[in-house]
Order: sequence, then C-alpha cells, then structure tokens
Amino acid sequence: MCRWLAYSGAPVLLDTILYKPKHSLIDQSLHSTMGVETTNGDGFGVGWYTPDANTPATLRDIGPAWNNRNLREIADHVRSSLFFAHIRASTGTAVQQTNCHPFRHGRWMWMHNGSIADFHLLRRELTLLVDPALYADIEGTTDSEVMFFLAITFGLDQDPPAAVARMAGTVERIGREHGVEFPLQMTVAVTDGDRIWAFRYSSQGNSRSLFYSSRVDSLRKLHPDVAFLQEASDETRLIVSEPLGDLPGAWNEVPESTYGVVQPGADELHPFVPEPA
Amino acid sequence: MCRWLAYSGAPVLLDTILYKPKHSLIDQSLHSTMGVETTNGDGFGVGWYTPDANTPATLRDIGPAWNNRNLREIADHVRSSLFFAHIRASTGTAVQQTNCHPFRHGRWMWMHNGSIADFHLLRRELTLLVDPALYADIEGTTDSEVMFFLAITFGLDQDPPAAVARMAGTVERIGREHGVEFPLQMTVAVTDGDRIWAFRYSSQGNSRSLFYSSRVDSLRKLHPDVAFLQEASDETRLIVSEPLGDLPGAWNEVPESTYGVVQPGADELHPFVPEPA
Amino acid sequence: MCRWLAYSGAPVLLDTILYKPKHSLIDQSLHSTMGVETTNGDGFGVGWYTPDANTPATLRDIGPAWNNRNLREIADHVRSSLFFAHIRASTGTAVQQTNCHPFRHGRWMWMHNGSIADFHLLRRELTLLVDPALYADIEGTTDSEVMFFLAITFGLDQDPPAAVARMAGTVERIGREHGVEFPLQMTVAVTDGDRIWAFRYSSQGNSRSLFYSSRVDSLRKLHPDVAFLQEASDETRLIVSEPLGDLPGAWNEVPESTYGVVQPGADELHPFVPEPA
Amino acid sequence: MCRWLAYSGAPVLLDTILYKPKHSLIDQSLHSTMGVETTNGDGFGVGWYTPDANTPATLRDIGPAWNNRNLREIADHVRSSLFFAHIRASTGTAVQQTNCHPFRHGRWMWMHNGSIADFHLLRRELTLLVDPALYADIEGTTDSEVMFFLAITFGLDQDPPAAVARMAGTVERIGREHGVEFPLQMTVAVTDGDRIWAFRYSSQGNSRSLFYSSRVDSLRKLHPDVAFLQEASDETRLIVSEPLGDLPGAWNEVPESTYGVVQPGADELHPFVPEPA
Repeated sequence: MCRWLAYSGAPVLLDTILYKPKHSLIDQSLHSTMGVETTNGDGFGVGWYTPDANTPATLRDIGPAWNNRNLREIADHVRSSLFFAHIRASTGTAVQQTNCHPFRHGRWMWMHNGSIADFHLLRRELTLLVDPALYADIEGTTDSEVMFFLAITFGLDQDPPAAVARMAGTVERIGREHGVEFPLQMTVAVTDGDRIWAFRYSSQGNSRSLFYSSRVDSLRKLHPDVAFLQEASDETRLIVSEPLGDLPGAWNEVPESTYGVVQPGADELHPFVPEPA
Repeated sequence: MCRWLAYSGAPVLLDTILYKPKHSLIDQSLHSTMGVETTNGDGFGVGWYTPDANTPATLRDIGPAWNNRNLREIADHVRSSLFFAHIRASTGTAVQQTNCHPFRHGRWMWMHNGSIADFHLLRRELTLLVDPALYADIEGTTDSEVMFFLAITFGLDQDPPAAVARMAGTVERIGREHGVEFPLQMTVAVTDGDRIWAFRYSSQGNSRSLFYSSRVDSLRKLHPDVAFLQEASDETRLIVSEPLGDLPGAWNEVPESTYGVVQPGADELHPFVPEPA
Repeated sequence: MCRWLAYSGAPVLLDTILYKPKHSLIDQSLHSTMGVETTNGDGFGVGWYTPDANTPATLRDIGPAWNNRNLREIADHVRSSLFFAHIRASTGTAVQQTNCHPFRHGRWMWMHNGSIADFHLLRRELTLLVDPALYADIEGTTDSEVMFFLAITFGLDQDPPAAVARMAGTVERIGREHGVEFPLQMTVAVTDGDRIWAFRYSSQGNSRSLFYSSRVDSLRKLHPDVAFLQEASDETRLIVSEPLGDLPGAWNEVPESTYGVVQPGADELHPFVPEPA
Repeated sequence: MCRWLAYSGAPVLLDTILYKPKHSLIDQSLHSTMGVETTNGDGFGVGWYTPDANTPATLRDIGPAWNNRNLREIADHVRSSLFFAHIRASTGTAVQQTNCHPFRHGRWMWMHNGSIADFHLLRRELTLLVDPALYADIEGTTDSEVMFFLAITFGLDQDPPAAVARMAGTVERIGREHGVEFPLQMTVAVTDGDRIWAFRYSSQGNSRSLFYSSRVDSLRKLHPDVAFLQEASDETRLIVSEPLGDLPGAWNEVPESTYGVVQPGADELHPFVPEPA
C-alpha cells in the first residue's frame, strides 16, 4: 500500500507541504500511522504543473523518499500551484521507475493507494480492456497503472467521475467473474492540471483512509496564532492519505464511497457508485 | 541492440571470461565494434548455474556493466560451468531491472540481441498469444521477454528449436499482418542448465553477428604458447555476439538462419526455419 | 543506526540465515524492535568467504534490503561458512555504496552499529591518524569506515582486540579533547575469514544491543522438535544486533564492555577496555 | 575525463541547450568526439538558479545522462538564465552521487574536466590544506571536489580568479614535491549565480578542449536563416567542452592558460597563471 498527497492553491515551494509539516509525507515514508505498512520505501514520485509547459513534470525514483537528495532539491527550489506526491509500499510488484506514481498521460496525472485483489488472476483480462491504441504505452506492471489506462479508455478526458466509475465497475465485474469477493480497494487522485478529483471506494465498504483539509479562512479564525495559516492562500486545499499534523479542525475524512472535486469556486463532494460496464 | 555471451565448459571464475579477454564483454560495453551502437550501457545481467540450486542465479542491474562493483565482485568470486552474460543498449524501452537479460523461468534462461520491428504496433497481439497462465509473470516491457514467453508457450520445455521456430514464425506472421516487412531480427541464446541453444536469424536474412569458439584441442595445437588455452578444458565452448579477441582460428561465424546446440558430446549446427504458427 | 549479523558454521545457503528466520535481518530492515530506528533502509551489504578466493566477496547496494532482488538471488544460490550482513539506517551521511557495510581490506571485513558522537567535529583529526599510506583507500564518509582504517593502522592484522582497543581509546581521547562527553557508541564485528571478533562498547556504558547464539548441541536437547536445529552444525555461531526469533534459551546478551571471539575450538568472551593511545 | 557546459543568457528551457543541439551534451555522453573517452556514462549533474532561492538547485545521479528520465523531465519543464551541466567519465573513483558535478557550496557551483595526476599520492596532503572548518563538508572522493574546497579556502568568495590561481599553484607545488611532473590538467567553471568564470589550464600546456560561443548579434548577421539565433537573447553565452554543433563562426577556442568571465556587460578573457602558494 502507499500514501499520497495532492495540493492545490497559491504557488508554494514543494518543501512547505512535503517536508515542513510535523507528520509530513516524508515522515510518513518512515512512520505511517494509518497505512497498512508503517514504511513506504519502495519508490516515490512527485508531479507538478508549471505555467510554461503543457504537461506536468514528474520526478520518480526507486529508492525511499526520505533519503533522496534530488527530491530534497526539487522541494527546495520548485514552486507550484498544483502538485501530487506519492510514496510507495510495494505488495510484490517490481520496484522500478515505471511502477512509481504519479502516472502521466498528456496533461493528466493519476495516483493510487490500494489494490486490485488477486491482480495476477485479473491482469490479463483487465489489460485487454484497455484501448488497443494505448496498450503499448503501459510501461509498468502495477494494478494502479492499468486502472489509469482503463479510466482513460472509458473517457477520463470527457467526464472523469464517470470514467472512474466505469473503471471501478469493470474491475468489480471481472473480479467477481473470477471468484474474487472484494475486487477493489482504492483511494485515487486524478487531475488535468486545473481540477483534482479524489475518490475513496472499496468493494467491501472498508476503504483506506482519505482526508481533505478545511477551508483556510475558517482555520485561521480557529487558530489565529498558527503562522502557516496566515501565509496560506484561501484557496489552499490538500487531500491526503493521512493528516499531516494534528491541528484540531484541520482535517475532514472523505466519507466511504465518495469523490470530491477541488476546483476554482466551490469544491464538491458526491457519492461514488461504480458503474457496471 | 545489445551484446551477449554464453559459456559452457569446466567451472571457471566468471572473471576469466567476462573481464580478462582483450575485447571482453565489459570492454564491449564501452567499445563494441560490431554492434549497432558502440556503447551498451543501459543495464546488464549475468546468470549462472551452481550445483546446489534448481534454478540459475542472476545478477541484473540498471547501470552500465563497466562500472558496476557488484558484477566485479561476483566475477571475482563465483565459478560456474555454464553462464550467460548480457549488456543492454535500449532502443527506447525503460531502463529497469525487469528489462535486463537474461530472463529466467524455472530452470530456463533466455537472452536476446535484436528486436521485433515496430514492436509497439505488435506488442498487444503478441502478448495475447502468451499462455494466459503465464501472462501475469511478464514483468518487463521488452520484445525480448515476450519472445521468451512465446517460446515457453510453444513448448520450450519439450523441444527448444521447435518452440523458437514457432515463436519466430508467429512474430513474422503477426508482423506481416500489420504491414511490417521484416518483423524479426534476433540472435538468441537459451539454456536449461545442461544444453545451450543459440539462434541466428532475421526476416531480412541480414542478422546481427554471432560467433562460436573453436575446439580447444585444435586451438591448443595452433597456439601452443597461449597460456589460457593450456588451462581451458576441452569442452570449453563460447558463443558470443562478437569475438573476445583476435586469436586466429578461434572464432567461427554462426551462419545465417542457423542454430547451434552446445551439449555433452558433439555440438551441432542446424538450419533454422521459422514455422508458420 | 543499523542492524547486523555474523554467521560462522557449516556452509549454509545465505537464505537460511538472512531470510528464513521469523525475525530475520530482512524483517529487521522494516521492523527492527531493538534498534534506534524501526526502519533500516539506507543501503545494505553482505560479505562472504568462498574456498576459491583470497578475499571475501561483497554485495552492497544503496536501496533497502527488503526489496533488493540481487540480494535475494545471492541468498538463494550462495553457500558460505562465514559471512556478514548489514542493514543501514543513515544518520545523515550520504546513501552511497561506499558507505555500506561490510567494509573490506584484503582478507578483512568490518561492520558497525553505533556512531562517533559529533563526528563532523572529529572527522578531520581522526582521519589524519590513519596511516598515510592507507588514506587514499578511504572511499566513503562514514565514521564506521574511519574506525576500520584506524584499527588497521593500529595493528588489526597482528592483534585485533588490541587494535580495536587502541582505535576506541583514540576516538575517546580526540572526542574529549573536543568537549564530547561520550564520544563512542559501537557494536563492531571484524573477521579475517577464520575467526570473528565482536565488540560491544560505549563511552557511556549504555551500548546498543548485541547477542550471540547458544551452543547448538545444548539447544537441540532443549528443543528436540525444532527442525532447523537438527540440521545445524555443532559449530554454528551467530552474533546479531537483535535475536532472529524467540526460541527460549537460544540467545545470550554480550555483556557491556565485552568482546567475543568465534573460532575453531572454544569461543571466548573477554572484557573490552579502550586503550589510551 | 568528462564533458561540461555552462549557459548564461535569457531564461530558456534547459532542453533547448541540453538536448536540442545536434551534438548536444546528451549526445556527447554517448559520442564525445574531443574527449579522452567517447563515452561519458558514469553519472551526471545539472545545476540551475531560480529567482526564488538563495542557492542553486541540483539534480545529480549515478547512471548515464542519456537514459535518465528525471533529467529529461527537468529539461522539459525548468527554465533558467544560468545553469551548469556535466557528464562524467570516471577514471576509477566511485560512481556515486557525491562524486557527480556540479558541486555546490552556498551560492557557488563548480564543475571540472581533467584530473590531478597521481591524485592517490597527493590526496591526503591536499585535503589537509582545506580549511579545517570545511573538511567535514567534503562528501565525495574526487580530485575535482578537493580543488573546489581548496579554492573556497583560498578566497573564492572574494576573488575567484586569484583563489583558483592559488589552488592551481598549490596542486602543482604539492605534486612536484611528490615527483609528479605535470600535476594539473583542468577546465573548470565556477559561478556565484551572477557571473561565470571559466578556466583552461594544464601544467603541461596541453589542456583539454574548451570553447565559448560567439556574440549572438554577430552570428545572427552571419546566419540570418538559423531560427534558433533569431530567438536567442543577445546576452546568450555558452562555454562548452566541445562545440554543440558545427555552425561556422559560432565557437571560439579558449586559449591555453586563459580564463574568461561571463558577466553583465562585456565579457573578458585574461591570462591564467597559477600562483605559488
């Protein structure tokens, strides 16, 4: 399993979010408290958008995040208003760059915590449902990447929640055809650089943890003495596998079978229902 | 493209074959003279059999062979009577351990120099022909690994030359169905730990170079002053992408569309004809 | 800090000791229970002697041990009657191969858990005390490697316990000259391939944990049903940072300020007193 | 030996300089034509300044530049008005991140092609001349890093050409005291983020190649049809180990025993004379 974080807001140094918080994602790479594993040391990735380029930049590597100097450098020198970060705990698949999140396709980025149960049984059939024109672009061997390619196949570009619902429904259908009782366990974030969609779902109704941050203006009133909040922009929104600290009122659990949208204007929470595809 | 080497004979330190020769495989990683690229620095692998284990051991890594200290250590301390070594020059697929040769399946090892033309066009269809029970064992993204799994699917365990012929015939058929004129270019070595089969073939009839070493007893008469030959066992046989030195009479080209068998008793050379499958 | 293990006995597959035990060193790389850190993921090393070579072979790499495939391969295929293994948790120095234990010099291997306090203050002066002829052989930046080179300088080849005592005395002297109250914290293992010396010492008298295994013949009587013990040779001896399991009677703590010698014939335990040098 | 490149001018995507030119630095990593080695695959580094930070960012890794995806990402997404890039061919020292150029100290970056002859003989004595307060900051084992720390010790912050002259004079003095006829061979670039100083010198008067680019306004008149020149800013200046292409008039050799200064206003060339220190 893994841990991840998505940031949207005024441009900040990645360091502010990745390293500075008390229970930062880097700390979680060694001492996750809500994950399946305390250690998430089987590779990492960060992906960020810049004003200059049509696609996000990614830095991914196969060692642990906590001792990676290139990640430290990027965090100290790069600002972004929308970025993803992910630390991996492999459940057996190879530790290689192409298995590190976030995955990218054009302007899109995708990252995942969870798994497809008995993926080795389902891998072939699921991969066959990927658009044949995209098949050769699959570079790694994770369930997460296949889920991404299925979502693209099912229209991620047009309607992300519907595409992810069809992907989830497909995984459940194929899984159940192979006798897998609870085929899907996922918290997923996906973005096109403007909006972020975050999903919490599992076939068993017992999903991995997922939280979103409270409105900064409310938090500021609650904690007038917290310096970080004075500097943070009102539009700041974080979605995280586990809270980055213990500031009262700062974190809200994403309910089971729910997805949220972080976007200009009001954010949204909606029920998530896999669509039998 | 790549370079490779297969050794069979009395147990020797890997160093004797991998590093010591004047134009050793390690030298070829920097200065290949007959390869498509002079540099083969996109990963390497070595696989060897030991009396103790049912499967060969492999050491594979993503950096260049020439500066790898673990390879140097293994070469200085491990003896084997049958081993493969491979240095990789990627034609675009990811540089990751699971794309490094030799590939292993049970007792079998496989390594390849060459390529399936327009593999991105053919990858999906070829992969679908792999035995579904084996599909989930494919860990990398190379044409070479798919060729191996096709050969296993087509009966490598029972009749290696026939299985490789069906693999080659299948690649050519699928390739031509997609309008690829010359789908296959290969020199392949495969072994079960007892015998080595080496294939030289290309759809165009213009295959990458492949050589086998002359009988040591003949060479010894020809070069009574070459110390290495005095020590080498009579059964020593090397198959190489390019000669390890320029000793007159030491190297023989494997003819086009031919495969050889290195085995206890007399070695063999046979025509190789892909079998339309 | 780190965890380590030294094995001496009848030749065994490294796997038997490295992976098989319930709380193996590989398990300790993720879930150390007695170490300063639960995670030891900043590189690893294994070094083993073979009958063929004058020096031990080492495999060292910068990623975590728990996901390293080359280590898994070596463990599954190499037998040795004397080997060291080490997993690293860096306290800030670079994660690089030259900082991974065991360190080697000729026939000697050295590994360490602990640290020289305020090493950055003492590094220059300590390094200057290394034999100038050896200075250029220092390849990494750890306190552990400097301790090894000091021990070599002080006669490791002639009298290992005396050389280590002089090293420890020197570190304490230089440390105290710089106002460091407790300069040294160490559990060290060193071997020439025939004998192993293991040291437990700290300036504060509060050393990191160290254990040695009980005599196999006694354990066999105590646990007639434990299969592993039936197979293990009588001379089997393990020295470990923390026990590999919870078999009653199997593990004995090395006392504070003590060193042990594992050798043909009776093993020994002696007081360890740094020698003011 | 190595190859390097320094860029100063209007902010550009690193890609424009690192990958786009016909004989780019990335191409030189495989096919250097003027270097001692054709292959420079023992690690790489890039360092760039951004408006936000007090220190330059660096990305350094131990594999070859030509297949590194993180370098490709940074090049595609980062703009800078002053950056260094370096590809390494080790002459035996370890391939590790801390041996990769550019080296950084505060705002300063340093990179080097060449070597101190018989460095193993001189390493200890030269390192002892480094300011003791800086000694513990030396992280690698290259001659290049020791040269950097000597230059810092000798006042790089106050007067870069004088500090480098004292460094060079010191290396020559210590070298000759040890019987080394030609102790120093170097092309060095150093920057504080505002100006770049580039040095070409060797004890033998036979230095490695070094070139600087012509004024863009002159080149534009000479080649009105070259699109790149229309877009390049007038202040664009490149200093390179070997030309990035064969545009007539574009490249000028830095003379032997000379250093240049790239700065706002007119650039300068001056004789370089090591100062006996």
